[in-house]
Amino acid sequence: MRYDTLRIAGDRVEILDQRLLPGKVSFVKCRSSEDIFDAIVKMKIRGAPAIGIAGAFGVYLGALQSSAREAETLRRDIGKVSARLASSRPTARNLFWALERMEKAAYGEGDASVEKIRIRLRREAERILDEDKTICRKIGSKGRQVIKKGFTVLTHCNAGSLATGGSGTALGVITASKGKISRVYVDETRPLLQGARLTAWELKREGIPAVLICDGAAAHFMSLGRIDAVIVGADRIARNGDTANKIGTYALAVSARYHKVPFYVAAPVSTFDAGIPGGKDIPIEQRHGDEVRKISGKLITVRGARVENPAFDVTPARLITAIITEKGIVRAPYTKSIKRILGGDGGI
Amino acid sequence: MRYDTLRIAGDRVEILDQRLLPGKVSFVKCRSSEDIFDAIVKMKIRGAPAIGIAGAFGVYLGALQSSAREAETLRRDIGKVSARLASSRPTARNLFWALERMEKAAYGEGDASVEKIRIRLRREAERILDEDKTICRKIGSKGRQVIKKGFTVLTHCNAGSLATGGSGTALGVITASKGKISRVYVDETRPLLQGARLTAWELKREGIPAVLICDGAAAHFMSLGRIDAVIVGADRIARNGDTANKIGTYALAVSARYHKVPFYVAAPVSTFDAGIPGGKDIPIEQRHGDEVRKISGKLITVRGARVENPAFDVTPARLITAIITEKGIVRAPYTKSIKRILGGDGGI
Repeated sequence: MRYDTLRIAGDRVEILDQRLLPGKVSFVKCRSSEDIFDAIVKMKIRGAPAIGIAGAFGVYLGALQSSAREAETLRRDIGKVSARLASSRPTARNLFWALERMEKAAYGEGDASVEKIRIRLRREAERILDEDKTICRKIGSKGRQVIKKGFTVLTHCNAGSLATGGSGTALGVITASKGKISRVYVDETRPLLQGARLTAWELKREGIPAVLICDGAAAHFMSLGRIDAVIVGADRIARNGDTANKIGTYALAVSARYHKVPFYVAAPVSTFDAGIPGGKDIPIEQRHGDEVRKISGKLITVRGARVENPAFDVTPARLITAIITEKGIVRAPYTKSIKRILGGDGGI
Repeated sequence: MRYDTLRIAGDRVEILDQRLLPGKVSFVKCRSSEDIFDAIVKMKIRGAPAIGIAGAFGVYLGALQSSAREAETLRRDIGKVSARLASSRPTARNLFWALERMEKAAYGEGDASVEKIRIRLRREAERILDEDKTICRKIGSKGRQVIKKGFTVLTHCNAGSLATGGSGTALGVITASKGKISRVYVDETRPLLQGARLTAWELKREGIPAVLICDGAAAHFMSLGRIDAVIVGADRIARNGDTANKIGTYALAVSARYHKVPFYVAAPVSTFDAGIPGGKDIPIEQRHGDEVRKISGKLITVRGARVENPAFDVTPARLITAIITEKGIVRAPYTKSIKRILGGDGGI
């Protein structure tokens, strides 16, 4: 029922081209780390956990491409590939987390042959993908607890199977709550319309009743008492709980607070960045103005209109009711609860 | 520099087809009240004051079409035409206000010939148009007082010359404050993109620096301290100050309150509806789902996606810093201040 966002076919990685959905299901064949870089930059693949997975496979493909005959040289090449992939998109923490895991895997337990390092890298990338499936399932089952029978929930952008290796984060909670949820309001999510294109598509395939709305209408439906909870994914969470997510998320959080609607973030632990004290330190990607100026390639405004197009915004922890992770549900005070959840995980 | 939204050419009314802007400047020739009805329903012309003006000319065209030979019959025909025009769009108060003025003009000072009634109707429609120019100028000069030197303001939808017979309401204030305003953030305003298509176009023609953003980004820019004031138009204002305006306005008002950004409504007195006690009694038009499902005719979501597409939302008076009218600036307590401003005007 679900398409794989990313799949391995021999020494090739195939990525579902999300730019073409829902009109067309087409896989992009990636044979090099540069193909992966391109897929991330152009948002053929998007969603924080998914670009982490893609980045991991990008490192593996880079290792295959390397002409190195010695481990040391290969590791140097991998370092370069990883740095290149890290420069693809700045906000999602999961990408850097995955790249760090891959670099660590390249070093492994000291000495190794070029061939062994490649095998290790492939295993590590596959492990990151497989783990993500489990993580999504756990987020779903934990998140299910906050959803009451008959709830109408609102979501923004796409934090579904397309954004992860599994069933999704926010949509993982929603699909795990099928039957309890009476309806999902889906923000279309301008500029790239991931809600209209991807989330509406996923919910239809899952058989969950969905209603598509314009982003500006969400507060209106809250005022009518039609939204019982907001649930979104995350691209990076600072150690105080401040959360970067798709532009438009913050507006929802402000409205949710005003209407006393609970506001949930669902994300794997790999989205947390212990190195970032608060939201103002999270780098926010500014994307090309044409994403706003054009829709489906057609100009919707005056030629050369000045545009500001931040891809993300930051929702301060104080507006977040809880963060749902695979290790449990985290609540305020976040600095403490996040520290606890990151506790055993030196790598994060 | 400005195009007329509506102009008279002999016994014909020409309407600038706003659906085609900014790509194409084209006038629709209206020869009958039904042509005007169609132009309003299909939003070839939109904006509360502008559809009031169009409605008035629609009644005049209806009177020209009538085969009545007696005043009584003509007045009956006018009543039917007016009822038909009143059914075009339900929310903007100005339409009903203009139709009421036209019906009153048809009765005038008692007896009159068919020809005299037609002349009176034409004069009344022209008067409504001319008055709107003056009203916009007055709103601009009064609104100018709330704009401080260097302000960056945010606006939503289009409340400009295209939405009125003059320089606009919200944009009337903005153009009257040219030089004081350093920049205007323009919400693109989904679904019909009046901000991207019309407001960005008008501001470019006026030479006022504008930045186009997605609707969901407005709160983010407020959080960065980049917005000094929000100013929007209105489609109907209840006697307690609750204001219906383009969907997305309410979300802005909630965010403005959260960020302590002043939130202004600019509207002519004809937008007030003394017959409506509060916002919950304002009829909200629900428009076709294809306005959300399709952009420039292209499907952007799954086929048959369920959509809710309210054209307007209601901003409660408590979130409105002030309402700028041609008769002065109205502030809380609104029930009192609005009563005062409507005072002399029995017709409203």
